[in-house]
Amino acid sequence: MRPPASIRWRMRTSILPKPSFTMRTLTIDSLNPALLKVEYAVRGELAIKAEKYRVQLKEPNHGLPFDRVISSNIGNPQQKGLDQPPITFTRQVAALTEWPELAELAPGVFPADVVARAKELMEEIGSVGAYSHSQGVPFIRANVAKFIEERDGFPSDPNHIFLTGGASAGVSLLINMLISSPTSGILIPIPQYPLYTATLAQHNGRPIPYYLDESKGWATSAQEIEAALDKAHKENTVPKALVIINPGNPTGALLDEPTMIQLVHLCEKYSLVLLADEVYQANLHQPENHPFTSFKKVVRELDSHVPLVSFHSISKGVSGECGRRGGYFECTNIPEPIIALIYKMVSVGLCPPLSGQIGVDSMVRPPREGEESYALWKKETDTIHDALRSRTKVMAERLNSLPGVSCVDSPGALYLYPKITLSDKAIEAARAAGKEPDAFYALALLDETGICVVPGSGFGQREGEWHYRLTCLCPGVDEYVGKLEKFHQSFVEKYGA
Amino acid sequence: MRPPASIRWRMRTSILPKPSFTMRTLTIDSLNPALLKVEYAVRGELAIKAEKYRVQLKEPNHGLPFDRVISSNIGNPQQKGLDQPPITFTRQVAALTEWPELAELAPGVFPADVVARAKELMEEIGSVGAYSHSQGVPFIRANVAKFIEERDGFPSDPNHIFLTGGASAGVSLLINMLISSPTSGILIPIPQYPLYTATLAQHNGRPIPYYLDESKGWATSAQEIEAALDKAHKENTVPKALVIINPGNPTGALLDEPTMIQLVHLCEKYSLVLLADEVYQANLHQPENHPFTSFKKVVRELDSHVPLVSFHSISKGVSGECGRRGGYFECTNIPEPIIALIYKMVSVGLCPPLSGQIGVDSMVRPPREGEESYALWKKETDTIHDALRSRTKVMAERLNSLPGVSCVDSPGALYLYPKITLSDKAIEAARAAGKEPDAFYALALLDETGICVVPGSGFGQREGEWHYRLTCLCPGVDEYVGKLEKFHQSFVEKYGA
Repeated sequence: MRPPASIRWRMRTSILPKPSFTMRTLTIDSLNPALLKVEYAVRGELAIKAEKYRVQLKEPNHGLPFDRVISSNIGNPQQKGLDQPPITFTRQVAALTEWPELAELAPGVFPADVVARAKELMEEIGSVGAYSHSQGVPFIRANVAKFIEERDGFPSDPNHIFLTGGASAGVSLLINMLISSPTSGILIPIPQYPLYTATLAQHNGRPIPYYLDESKGWATSAQEIEAALDKAHKENTVPKALVIINPGNPTGALLDEPTMIQLVHLCEKYSLVLLADEVYQANLHQPENHPFTSFKKVVRELDSHVPLVSFHSISKGVSGECGRRGGYFECTNIPEPIIALIYKMVSVGLCPPLSGQIGVDSMVRPPREGEESYALWKKETDTIHDALRSRTKVMAERLNSLPGVSCVDSPGALYLYPKITLSDKAIEAARAAGKEPDAFYALALLDETGICVVPGSGFGQREGEWHYRLTCLCPGVDEYVGKLEKFHQSFVEKYGA
Repeated sequence: MRPPASIRWRMRTSILPKPSFTMRTLTIDSLNPALLKVEYAVRGELAIKAEKYRVQLKEPNHGLPFDRVISSNIGNPQQKGLDQPPITFTRQVAALTEWPELAELAPGVFPADVVARAKELMEEIGSVGAYSHSQGVPFIRANVAKFIEERDGFPSDPNHIFLTGGASAGVSLLINMLISSPTSGILIPIPQYPLYTATLAQHNGRPIPYYLDESKGWATSAQEIEAALDKAHKENTVPKALVIINPGNPTGALLDEPTMIQLVHLCEKYSLVLLADEVYQANLHQPENHPFTSFKKVVRELDSHVPLVSFHSISKGVSGECGRRGGYFECTNIPEPIIALIYKMVSVGLCPPLSGQIGVDSMVRPPREGEESYALWKKETDTIHDALRSRTKVMAERLNSLPGVSCVDSPGALYLYPKITLSDKAIEAARAAGKEPDAFYALALLDETGICVVPGSGFGQREGEWHYRLTCLCPGVDEYVGKLEKFHQSFVEKYGA
């Protein structure tokens, strides 16, 4: 229905003479300066270069010294090359909710408990193609509440639970809500998962860094946090919240209950909201020495009134369903008007993805003993736990045996965060290349081996220290660590220890 | 692993004496004031009350004058009670990507083209449980680009396409990016979809309202927009972008190409970014008189350099897959550094849901003639188009025959936006109840019939006018409109015309 040229010309020259020569071109300086300050190393320069290599490798004569890219920069268990298989139960339920007729069309293909589970979910949801309640399907929130009650031994209210598109969406909303002025600050562990600094930068908040103690297995110390609060006070920063990542990312450290009690009391003393990032709560490699305790449990045990928001996700654990974008946060000691404000804000985004919500349901309601799917589920989850535990141990041992490398054998999460000593020569070469020394090391590692890690400068570290984070997800641990060792040796030969 | 009371007591009374009595309680005034200003009527007071009624209806003696709630407040085609069926092809592909083994386990259950499509997708994606490229799976972006090229006859670059979790996520990011200071403003049509004012409030931007002309079928006028710009200039508001919703929400109006040419020239003249919300592009009830033309096509036809971001979604159209959270936006004439900034920001959120991305692929690559799934797909999509067209027509006719009601017979989208004349008596009663008159009318409608609509005050309207938005999705149009008519008559009897 394009009008004839004559008309279009009349339109062009009608009330608005075409003045395109006067049009200012859109430049980045005309945009929100806060967004320019955002940094997110996990998908930064290295990840982008790794993507380029991945494309280049498809060419017949790619000329690269490696034949595949190993993306150790991000905890993405099911990605190509890592291939941690999904839990069959989770996917069977998901497939049936996508096309419920399958139960009749393919009789006997789905276990009875899967068919029953999918039927139960569909009665509550109606269709995975429909918007749900903005806070998440009430039935699924009730199941999350039961999961939390069984875990902690304290009641949980489905009306205080918000299902989300992964934990990140919830963290971002809470930080946006807590930053009430440019002097507002939030306590962030160093090293940290850069989502926190990125979101603070986006919303014009101030990070208040507190350091974890690598010499004590990346321990969290209330004294360190009080020192950081003191410094913030001198800089007229108003602390609003304390972020704790437990199990730690990138450190894999686990908090013991006495420390958690101290941290809750610290939040009481300084009137801080406690933001508990507990997405790795199911990734425990030494549960006997390093069990997981939730902050919800500690807060309830102490009868504390500390406002607590705790985050969980289906992206990690044995679920590893990153691509579904599913998670939840639970609000404890959060006044109802603020719950209503959170509801209003999530309602603008309509609802979390239903496939993620259904993934949350499968995570909090796995098959029980005696149900048809239990045996396979047990076998699959045990295999994932064992593989991650043994890989983490072997990788830590072999990294620690390298010259100038020391690595805390992390009891949780999916990562190791080795410290590397870099020679003055290496540091000079890095500066000359306009890179942080650890980024320089990581780029060389990528260029020579195809292994993509994230430099410590992306997570934070003490002045003059260098680290990198790598995942413990790669299947062929020998090939993987072998490449790391060979590279490190050649780097040391080139630049000295 | 709770330590004995003695230890816990030592912890409590260690370095940090328990000072909970001094803890300031968290109050809403201590939070980001911008979020308090956010309003989103589509899921506001009425929707919340409707949810309460839905729960109440499950009780044996619920005592309500209706036996079901009809949620006409939101375009959610597949919700319970509306039950627009999903497209079988879309769900078959989705089920196979969730559990690929099904193709072998249930031979013959899936059409050959579905099996081939799922296989092709899985080769590119690896697993729907893995994070994808933050911008969206490259293969799916390439398919979106082909779809756009076929639609417009101009090239499209997959690197300038971002897959999103529904259109809202993209709109929110773009507005956050464009609001560079508290004086930044964005031109918003009145009436508008409240996502725009809500997101502007959240990010401390100023809406610059321009009015659509109801007497001309909700026409958009460049003169009106220039008048709004003039007013904004006097208020020291710096206009950054023009939002156009085409087909209109809530109006259902479609722009003709001559008007679109004027609007592009206006963006050139005032150096505005054009934000084109085109999520209803496939919901056309009178395509012969009111076809859809994309702004991408017009910008290319004019060889214009106007920066354009156009949004599309799988939530509307014949797809109606709201719950998957899938969509995309295409950037046209956006400089590369800004594309890189957008990439950085979306990477902090990791990636859009894979089930949404796969839904986008099914939307832009429906079965073609000659493929096994084509006949059923054609039948299903024709049925949806026909039902929406006829319902919209019947509803507009019957609403127009009511005293004091006038309604533009909308040629597109999913809604009608009737104007209602309210008597002084009704307005006084509303004010006495502390409600906007149209909200008062809508609340009475909900209380008496269970039909939930959204008052015009949620979308914006001229001073002293009253409207409401209702969807044209309800299956039993006679029962639905019958209830509306009966209610309106009784309201007029009670309060006068």
